[in-house]
Amino acid sequence: MNFKSDNTASAAPEILQALGDVNEGAVAAYGDDPWSQKLDDAFSEVFEREVRVFTVASGTAANAISVATLTPPWGAVLCHREAHIECDECGAPEFFSNGAKLVLMEGADAKVTPAALAEAATRNARGIHSVQPSMVSISQTTERGAIYTPAEVFALGETARGAGLRFHMDGARFANAVAALQCKPADISWRGGVDLLSFGATKNGALAAESIVVFDLKLAEEVARRRKRGGHLFCKGRYPAAQFLAYLKDGLWLRFAARANALAAKLADAAGVSAESNQVFIAPGAEGLAKLRAAGAQFYDWGAEGSGEARLVVSWNQAEAEVDAMCVLLKALR
Amino acid sequence: MNFKSDNTASAAPEILQALGDVNEGAVAAYGDDPWSQKLDDAFSEVFEREVRVFTVASGTAANAISVATLTPPWGAVLCHREAHIECDECGAPEFFSNGAKLVLMEGADAKVTPAALAEAATRNARGIHSVQPSMVSISQTTERGAIYTPAEVFALGETARGAGLRFHMDGARFANAVAALQCKPADISWRGGVDLLSFGATKNGALAAESIVVFDLKLAEEVARRRKRGGHLFCKGRYPAAQFLAYLKDGLWLRFAARANALAAKLADAAGVSAESNQVFIAPGAEGLAKLRAAGAQFYDWGAEGSGEARLVVSWNQAEAEVDAMCVLLKALR
Amino acid sequence: MNFKSDNTASAAPEILQALGDVNEGAVAAYGDDPWSQKLDDAFSEVFEREVRVFTVASGTAANAISVATLTPPWGAVLCHREAHIECDECGAPEFFSNGAKLVLMEGADAKVTPAALAEAATRNARGIHSVQPSMVSISQTTERGAIYTPAEVFALGETARGAGLRFHMDGARFANAVAALQCKPADISWRGGVDLLSFGATKNGALAAESIVVFDLKLAEEVARRRKRGGHLFCKGRYPAAQFLAYLKDGLWLRFAARANALAAKLADAAGVSAESNQVFIAPGAEGLAKLRAAGAQFYDWGAEGSGEARLVVSWNQAEAEVDAMCVLLKALR
Amino acid sequence: MNFKSDNTASAAPEILQALGDVNEGAVAAYGDDPWSQKLDDAFSEVFEREVRVFTVASGTAANAISVATLTPPWGAVLCHREAHIECDECGAPEFFSNGAKLVLMEGADAKVTPAALAEAATRNARGIHSVQPSMVSISQTTERGAIYTPAEVFALGETARGAGLRFHMDGARFANAVAALQCKPADISWRGGVDLLSFGATKNGALAAESIVVFDLKLAEEVARRRKRGGHLFCKGRYPAAQFLAYLKDGLWLRFAARANALAAKLADAAGVSAESNQVFIAPGAEGLAKLRAAGAQFYDWGAEGSGEARLVVSWNQAEAEVDAMCVLLKALR
Repeated sequence: MNFKSDNTASAAPEILQALGDVNEGAVAAYGDDPWSQKLDDAFSEVFEREVRVFTVASGTAANAISVATLTPPWGAVLCHREAHIECDECGAPEFFSNGAKLVLMEGADAKVTPAALAEAATRNARGIHSVQPSMVSISQTTERGAIYTPAEVFALGETARGAGLRFHMDGARFANAVAALQCKPADISWRGGVDLLSFGATKNGALAAESIVVFDLKLAEEVARRRKRGGHLFCKGRYPAAQFLAYLKDGLWLRFAARANALAAKLADAAGVSAESNQVFIAPGAEGLAKLRAAGAQFYDWGAEGSGEARLVVSWNQAEAEVDAMCVLLKALR
Repeated sequence: MNFKSDNTASAAPEILQALGDVNEGAVAAYGDDPWSQKLDDAFSEVFEREVRVFTVASGTAANAISVATLTPPWGAVLCHREAHIECDECGAPEFFSNGAKLVLMEGADAKVTPAALAEAATRNARGIHSVQPSMVSISQTTERGAIYTPAEVFALGETARGAGLRFHMDGARFANAVAALQCKPADISWRGGVDLLSFGATKNGALAAESIVVFDLKLAEEVARRRKRGGHLFCKGRYPAAQFLAYLKDGLWLRFAARANALAAKLADAAGVSAESNQVFIAPGAEGLAKLRAAGAQFYDWGAEGSGEARLVVSWNQAEAEVDAMCVLLKALR
Repeated sequence: MNFKSDNTASAAPEILQALGDVNEGAVAAYGDDPWSQKLDDAFSEVFEREVRVFTVASGTAANAISVATLTPPWGAVLCHREAHIECDECGAPEFFSNGAKLVLMEGADAKVTPAALAEAATRNARGIHSVQPSMVSISQTTERGAIYTPAEVFALGETARGAGLRFHMDGARFANAVAALQCKPADISWRGGVDLLSFGATKNGALAAESIVVFDLKLAEEVARRRKRGGHLFCKGRYPAAQFLAYLKDGLWLRFAARANALAAKLADAAGVSAESNQVFIAPGAEGLAKLRAAGAQFYDWGAEGSGEARLVVSWNQAEAEVDAMCVLLKALR
Repeated sequence: MNFKSDNTASAAPEILQALGDVNEGAVAAYGDDPWSQKLDDAFSEVFEREVRVFTVASGTAANAISVATLTPPWGAVLCHREAHIECDECGAPEFFSNGAKLVLMEGADAKVTPAALAEAATRNARGIHSVQPSMVSISQTTERGAIYTPAEVFALGETARGAGLRFHMDGARFANAVAALQCKPADISWRGGVDLLSFGATKNGALAAESIVVFDLKLAEEVARRRKRGGHLFCKGRYPAAQFLAYLKDGLWLRFAARANALAAKLADAAGVSAESNQVFIAPGAEGLAKLRAAGAQFYDWGAEGSGEARLVVSWNQAEAEVDAMCVLLKALR
């Protein structure tokens, strides 16, 4: 019963197979191979408009390059206090952006509200002496498993535009949001004003496939340059490309995400909480957590130390039996 | 007849198979999986001493992180004018090192000599006003296909030590050097004074497997931090690890390299030149190059524009028939 | 009645005169002139031990270079939420440090407590994913005019040492602290564990004289390099040197600071508040502030918008008549 | 007989006096004082068009901030091999620009020719793998004392524009060029296409007055931000402003420069060489240099080690007697 993270899961056979399928012949390197050349089209179809996509090695790279592209070094990057870019990237956004400052917002379920954003955008009372609010970054789904609806994304986009801010979305679990909302990918990205999207597949069935989707095409050249300088232009581009092509084909990505979401809902139900995506947050107290662990469950504590909270993440291929067994344990705690 | 580069080649079946072999079950992320945990031992065995190894997404990343670890921002990085870090990484070493300066040396076959190094190490006549020579970086094999013998590496290491310089080796084609020299990997790395080695497998049969081998163990923590901030800590560490484990197993890497070297020797022989590794440099003039292309050969022009030179690179799995056909063409030009 | 800041004041005649005194003859540039050569000795005498001192153009430069010297780029710089390095330097510490992160602590009067520091030093529950607490920076006096006693500095130093943190002090108003405490400069700097001190004179009578005092002499070379790369090595070193020599001579600096402190105490007394140094914080409400301004007083609002708070800063040469007039106004508000 | 550099000289009485003249009363800090407010107008008058000017602490800062403003981090900064930004700033341009690369051009007298510039602008045969030529930086006067005529500046500007390059001029000795050419400052700056000019006064009579003159007004905000983050926004802006106002008043700057140029011409004449500005380069051989030194002359050797060359720089206030005595020595060597 390993619910530590969806990055503990293996890769999907469809995606592994895709690596074999492209493993033939000599092709141009650095993204000039036939499969890489199809990527922009594949993503453009998914997003119902022309986009450019840049594969990178990690979600951290996708986020940090995006941030660096959207803020000058003297900018303030407005994000939630629990954002991955703030908590989990060892300062990669600061490194790539040449020292921009992350300015933090509060909000339930790690969500940013238009009101919080509007307030944060004005936090520059000292003119030349302060960093300048220049962009907002939100996570879809959030680090607390919450989902922004299309209307919510749009409202944030409006607020951002009004305040002169660029808009980045960390979509490490973008698939789970689309699957849960049963909306179009466009509805929670560019239609809502998102300029750059970190679009991840690794947590949802790929081996290593992360990317930056560029909606504002004028940014593409800068993203390309920053990717190269970051060492993220893959030499043999066919392999990350193949993963993404398989991932997007026939909605595989959404099936995986929907399945994980559904199993998470079962866990949430058993625990008496709600879950919007594939992450479930429970708070049975220290004793309860100890019992779960004693029964073989693996997961991370969450929240403040000693809070008695924990996070359960369901992977794309989590065994139903695992989930069922966990449900029994969770119900027993109530 | 594609001799453009060894990065155009597909991956070896043994290495692709290794991905499938580890694609089972949930394991810890970020390098705490069982296969990643074996990497240090596998490399330590190859190098006959304790080392630490850090996988990254590209050779550019391996080089840039190594450089940043070995020089302060105000340092001069001494390297050959044709070095990959100077010519082909869009300033990644400058980016990762926060603005260190690459100071260039000349030398036949893109090789650095101890004399050139000793001279370059003294190029700081202006005290606080000049960048400080702090490290040397050489490529093994060089960008002109040349190989440093163990004695040559050692001599450079001695010179570096004497001048207070750290020592980095760009080993994107390290395998070809070991295979050609039939020496121990240690003989052309740490025994010669190398502190950090960019050890690549992508050009020699892997899908995407690059790494930094740390010989000076005190540097490991800094390399780890710089890797994370560069977005090069893979989420699912098992896949790069599996590639390297398969690559090193039973000398697979050296068999591939030896094969490519041998086929390159055939090409060189046909062209009436010599080749130390898997790269062959020919100079049949513009007309000769045009004839080769007309006959279906693919390759890059090399050297100054209009020099009539070209580079032929043999991949690990280059078809013998291709080589034979190319030999016919090359002989016809003489 | 201008109480906006001590940086609105003109320079002291003694210091202006010193510029004229050194304005004779051709001397070596870049700090090799006779006056610059005396700086280390002058500061060493003031601090009762061997120090190295580096003049720079601004307090921001002194702070940012110090921070960059004491933290690696992946470090967390622990400081108070109201610290100058956080609020007023447009990200200079992030720029100079290549993207270190400022991690904020709370505390009354903009003071950091050992308990807060100890807690902040442990905020790295995510290993490689988090920035690493590497240093603490405090302001003496604080941005709220408070003063750390020798015992308080020592306690912070102990906590820092125990947590493996380096220790920086922003001493833009260091003189006011020494004068108020009537202690030795050493007692609130290196004896308390401070590694680098931003020692400013501009706010206390100089034209433009800021510096970094290096107590850990091993850091001197790095400070020198970072200063040069930051463009802060003055070409004609005699002029900043002359300012500092005059400033330190016969205790001029402490007389100025003591005078400003004493006048601030009068203001505080009139307002019914307390003041430890030359800054006074009052909270008469919006109406009270309006009355003060209507009567000709100049100052900055402070604290949250609409808090009705204001800051009054007394300069080294503030006219007593101004202070007396302001006292009348302040008493009238009570 | 100190001809080491014009930065060994003391400051002009007119400029020192100006410091005293503004040393009265409390005024706004950070450039909002009355004298700083006049700077833009004073410079606009000198340059016959609207400009913005930003004072900084050193020529290195002026150059590095200018470079960072005109190139992206992945840019190539085209400059002469002997340029100050390449040789004498310890990597400050790389630091401020977040790792742009200086790409070097050759040329007699440290001058860049349009042909050399046009060639260098095409040195990017490797697309995404190479840094992108993005700007050119020239020194007026050059590090070898040569001067670009208005026509030469214009030709370089044309070449730059044609190649999509921005144009920076290091004017540490801009005054000497204007005085020698007897042209308008505009003729060798913005009329020739210069976007940003490092305009120095320190070497020509000021204590510490360096600046960035912004001709492309859209760049002003970025220069302001980079200056602040570099710690170069002076707290008490009146003092650098006062120096510049006195420097520009009634052509003082040009009188000083013309005088130094004239005395340098005498030295050159005595040595049998030519000099365009206030720097004279002689090559009497090692023995000759030794004789000069034995007779009390101070200067720096120049060129390659053992070249027997030396540089003589005449300061704004160099005593005529010194020059005459030196002339005698120089003639004796012929």
